[in-house]
Amino acid sequence: MNPIKKRKLGHVELSISTMRAMVIDMINKANSGHPGMALDAAPIVYALFHDHLVSDPKHPEWVNRDRFVLSAGHSSALLYSTLHLAGYDLSLDDLKTYRQLGSRTAGHPEFGHAPGIDATSGPLGQGISQAVGMAMAEKAISAQYEDGDKIMSHYTYCLCGDGCLEEGLSQEAISLAGHYELNKLILIYDENGSTLDGPTSDSLSENVKLRFLASNWNVLEVKNGNDAAAISNAIEKAKASTTYPTLIIVHTVIGFGSKFQGDHKTHGEPLGEEDGNYAKSQYGYTRAPWDIAPEVYEDFKNSFAKRGHEAYLAYQKAVEEYRSFHPEAYQQFLDSFEGNLDKYIPAMPEFGASEASRASSGKVLSAFATSIPFTMGGSADVAGSTKTNIKGIEMFTAENPSGRDVHWGIREFAMAGAANGMALHGGVLPYVSCFLIFSDYMKSAIRMACLEHLPVLYLFTHDSIAVGEDGPTHEPIEQLAALRSMPGIDVIRPADAKETYGAYLCAAQYRNGPTALILSRQNLPTLDNSDPEQVKKGAYIVYQPSKKADATLIATGSEVSLAIDASKLLEEKGIYCDVVSMPSWKRFLEQEQSYQNEVLHLPYERRVSIEMLSTFGWRAFARHNIGIDEFGASGPAKDVLKHFGFDKDSIAAKIELLLASK
Amino acid sequence: MNPIKKRKLGHVELSISTMRAMVIDMINKANSGHPGMALDAAPIVYALFHDHLVSDPKHPEWVNRDRFVLSAGHSSALLYSTLHLAGYDLSLDDLKTYRQLGSRTAGHPEFGHAPGIDATSGPLGQGISQAVGMAMAEKAISAQYEDGDKIMSHYTYCLCGDGCLEEGLSQEAISLAGHYELNKLILIYDENGSTLDGPTSDSLSENVKLRFLASNWNVLEVKNGNDAAAISNAIEKAKASTTYPTLIIVHTVIGFGSKFQGDHKTHGEPLGEEDGNYAKSQYGYTRAPWDIAPEVYEDFKNSFAKRGHEAYLAYQKAVEEYRSFHPEAYQQFLDSFEGNLDKYIPAMPEFGASEASRASSGKVLSAFATSIPFTMGGSADVAGSTKTNIKGIEMFTAENPSGRDVHWGIREFAMAGAANGMALHGGVLPYVSCFLIFSDYMKSAIRMACLEHLPVLYLFTHDSIAVGEDGPTHEPIEQLAALRSMPGIDVIRPADAKETYGAYLCAAQYRNGPTALILSRQNLPTLDNSDPEQVKKGAYIVYQPSKKADATLIATGSEVSLAIDASKLLEEKGIYCDVVSMPSWKRFLEQEQSYQNEVLHLPYERRVSIEMLSTFGWRAFARHNIGIDEFGASGPAKDVLKHFGFDKDSIAAKIELLLASK
Repeated sequence: MNPIKKRKLGHVELSISTMRAMVIDMINKANSGHPGMALDAAPIVYALFHDHLVSDPKHPEWVNRDRFVLSAGHSSALLYSTLHLAGYDLSLDDLKTYRQLGSRTAGHPEFGHAPGIDATSGPLGQGISQAVGMAMAEKAISAQYEDGDKIMSHYTYCLCGDGCLEEGLSQEAISLAGHYELNKLILIYDENGSTLDGPTSDSLSENVKLRFLASNWNVLEVKNGNDAAAISNAIEKAKASTTYPTLIIVHTVIGFGSKFQGDHKTHGEPLGEEDGNYAKSQYGYTRAPWDIAPEVYEDFKNSFAKRGHEAYLAYQKAVEEYRSFHPEAYQQFLDSFEGNLDKYIPAMPEFGASEASRASSGKVLSAFATSIPFTMGGSADVAGSTKTNIKGIEMFTAENPSGRDVHWGIREFAMAGAANGMALHGGVLPYVSCFLIFSDYMKSAIRMACLEHLPVLYLFTHDSIAVGEDGPTHEPIEQLAALRSMPGIDVIRPADAKETYGAYLCAAQYRNGPTALILSRQNLPTLDNSDPEQVKKGAYIVYQPSKKADATLIATGSEVSLAIDASKLLEEKGIYCDVVSMPSWKRFLEQEQSYQNEVLHLPYERRVSIEMLSTFGWRAFARHNIGIDEFGASGPAKDVLKHFGFDKDSIAAKIELLLASK
Repeated sequence: MNPIKKRKLGHVELSISTMRAMVIDMINKANSGHPGMALDAAPIVYALFHDHLVSDPKHPEWVNRDRFVLSAGHSSALLYSTLHLAGYDLSLDDLKTYRQLGSRTAGHPEFGHAPGIDATSGPLGQGISQAVGMAMAEKAISAQYEDGDKIMSHYTYCLCGDGCLEEGLSQEAISLAGHYELNKLILIYDENGSTLDGPTSDSLSENVKLRFLASNWNVLEVKNGNDAAAISNAIEKAKASTTYPTLIIVHTVIGFGSKFQGDHKTHGEPLGEEDGNYAKSQYGYTRAPWDIAPEVYEDFKNSFAKRGHEAYLAYQKAVEEYRSFHPEAYQQFLDSFEGNLDKYIPAMPEFGASEASRASSGKVLSAFATSIPFTMGGSADVAGSTKTNIKGIEMFTAENPSGRDVHWGIREFAMAGAANGMALHGGVLPYVSCFLIFSDYMKSAIRMACLEHLPVLYLFTHDSIAVGEDGPTHEPIEQLAALRSMPGIDVIRPADAKETYGAYLCAAQYRNGPTALILSRQNLPTLDNSDPEQVKKGAYIVYQPSKKADATLIATGSEVSLAIDASKLLEEKGIYCDVVSMPSWKRFLEQEQSYQNEVLHLPYERRVSIEMLSTFGWRAFARHNIGIDEFGASGPAKDVLKHFGFDKDSIAAKIELLLASK
């Protein structure tokens, strides 16, 4: 694959060269960026946008647009250049501030920063899993509605490099995609033979094609990555698939055009002016930086923008028709995309006098999933334990894509990544579930939900050493601290069944980020004074002693009832403690200072936190912290609890001691 | 596959039935456990122990034994039963306390709890990655020493189910194993068609065989999982491989023998007495619980134990001979397994007046790796950035397995998992490296290192928003809190080059758990009063103002010099602050109270923490916390730092304000 010889460029060559020149100039101006793949992938993105992608740059949030996820997020310069040329609201000035503070063109694509960015990417593999979630959402929505294909029918494209494919996350995601026969998912693999540290062959000798075939994908191959027509043909073939998702392997040369093309050194360093000019000369590109040929704008306008706008208009017409035939379904469809949940919120279910909060959650989830017809979710193979099996909700399968119960398999990371994709896509309200300990496997995807401000709901059960026999590998200790420390997530640990319902109300209300519910395996008494509405405030006094309190016990989840029991015991000794249930730190810290002072009305030194997990972070609220700062143990739950001092006598004794200390 | 008909059992059948009966009885007695795979995999484990595994139950820590990792850790009952029968120091009484508090037979296999447990497992996929690390260590050690195969030559076996294979982690691990041609790694896949939530086909339709072939593995298949001879033959074939690792797919029936065999319901619930007796009758097994036939002990004694002990004795002889021919090499070999590092510790390298701590780390690592000939490690494709490329250390490849520089590819989780395997194996001292933000991808494997008390060294660079242009997806915020909250890990964030050297000294000293070094991308001045030796104490006063301090600034890493600058500025205003460098919370909290009081000699309210990451947890040391509790931003580092107020003027102003507040 030699650089193109000097001659007058045809319109395809001119457009692609312009994209490449813009990439060089953006990265040079920023003096930062990753030109390698951004240069070699230009023909791929050109072929996709010019010939296939259906999206209206004037209506970038159109729900039925094709989605495009640049999983190789370090190639952002190519995406931004293309979005500009394609007519999105992204100016040359925006491009000139590439990687600058406050710019719309951040170092990696950031969802919400500029139109046309369908997902945040950069952490490798996550773009693919998000694309899989989008394709699942499309398939599900299209099947869930009568004549659904009239309101929801589009492709999901994703572009990745070796990095994404080496991440195990990608295997989980492609395995799911093949299993669900996501035939409208098209993944393009820019195979440029190079990673950051050297040739790909230093660390990869796997047959990628075979790996995808093993997961029930079509695999197409384009030998010459500069042959936009061949790439376009491959995409055309891929779109015709009626069963399998398609991988298109496109062989490219990293840093194409540079003196160092083919060398991994072009991956992450700007080309600089000299090599940049050299590369442009290799393309036969002669224009000054930022001086875009009008023909290039025309080229995109007459293809991508025209096709997209026509499709958009046709969709508006189709949707009007749909509305007249299916007014209720259409309203639901609108509600699902706009996140109008208020009218769907179910009443609080009946609870027992004592039940595990995972069981309460199961009841509430069932009520929510039944009354909100666009919820979709499930568990990473522990549905029976996390209580996400819902009566009357069918399994989502290749044959029954209208099902809303997803059996994710033992793939926590892809589950969370795909849930992000679903939330980005809209039209479904995703929830996912596993044991709290395995939130570790999906941590980076949860962070991504925070970054993208996505209302994903996590149901994490088995939330303490009360897991018992399974032992320390299955007993969370520091997981709650890890979740709470993440900006933007609402972590709620309800004390009982009523608070569990309240936690769901919070999740339904919070549309600007994810919510994690932390749920017990073991039974919890339903408390006299617990209140679903108070959960929204993050913390409240749930128990008051018979005399004016001289200490405050702050507890969450299963430890609230324990704290109340301890308070009662202490009262016999003349120590009066009120008990604060603090299901959500985030919500409490967002309350007005006056409310915070009201709840935590005693001095810092007179407060004791009680939580059967790491005390890490609790000093923010209480001078004294009772928790577990070591790993758990295997044994019957009651023995393990006793061993770690989480019975009422031990707790009361500990509190007495702590309050007596200085 | 019908249950075996009633008749007098041959010795193979008797042994296998005994193993199964013991599994049933253990789980019934505990009233907790996972009989499903433990029952169906009995012939696999029998064939392995009886015919192949080379290990001396009387010398379970023999370095050249074959390793066996039960990646499907929930089948622990089968492992314990087998270890008992095979002659390990694990009594019937131990088995009778299965899953009880303080027992040696925990719910999942816990490394160190009983002999013969080569790895902790349970979190799915991690056993496989640990086995890959063990096989890498074996291959490397064998190649690194002259006549190395005389002192290191064994197989690594691993048994897994669907769960492990669905986890993306397994793909990373098997891809590495194929790439490195770990021909002595044998993975047995118990294909029982069932996961916890239902038939495997609900969530998996991938062709596992093809997936492994794609990663350069041999694949063998055994149709009848009860045919121990066929399984044994397959293992024999696998052992003959000279190039590829081998997967043996064994088709089994979950919960074999139970009335509910083949049903996923047998996965996680005890069979109970009635079904247990039914199952035993299906096996033709007639003995009372815990009444083990002497022939079974004999069977293992005459095969496994005899073979193992002979091999052990032969090895002792060979090793004596080796010692006489290669006394120095042998001493190094001993040191590597015993962790005798003292004599290898290099002097502090020369540092510049200002350098990034990742660069200082590169120099120190180079000195350590050069003087400790058994270090082995590398980076997840960011060696150039994390400075783990070491001059003179060759790349570990299939062709050059004596190399010690591992190019892990973009596989953080498997990298960390394999490093655990290396540390478990012994003989190599593993270090791994990536950007701090991607510690999220490997969190569960880091936790595993803590649980297993393994001295793995993590080098995490790019430790703050000073990453700059790559933006929020690449800028750690809450990662440090997540690491610090983990029990057992020593997290060290050195302030400069000298402290970086000190951090390596700490890591070399701490053999009971992992150490994470948190390193800067940007330059840091080498401080006047920093001291490598003081790092061992976790914190010390690194700067004192000209008059008696009335406030203490506690900082780590890049913020120590910033705190000193701020202190100098504040002095002009008559505010005198001493500065504490606190590279390691863990170490500081382990000091005597008197030392802690000496360093933090001012009242809580007069202390301010300064760290360019989440403040989460810092209230443990200081009333006032300066940090970043939101996501970062993309832009040149200096602009981003300024934006978040991490320049000396802003910091000084903020400190003044905080100290003035009540």
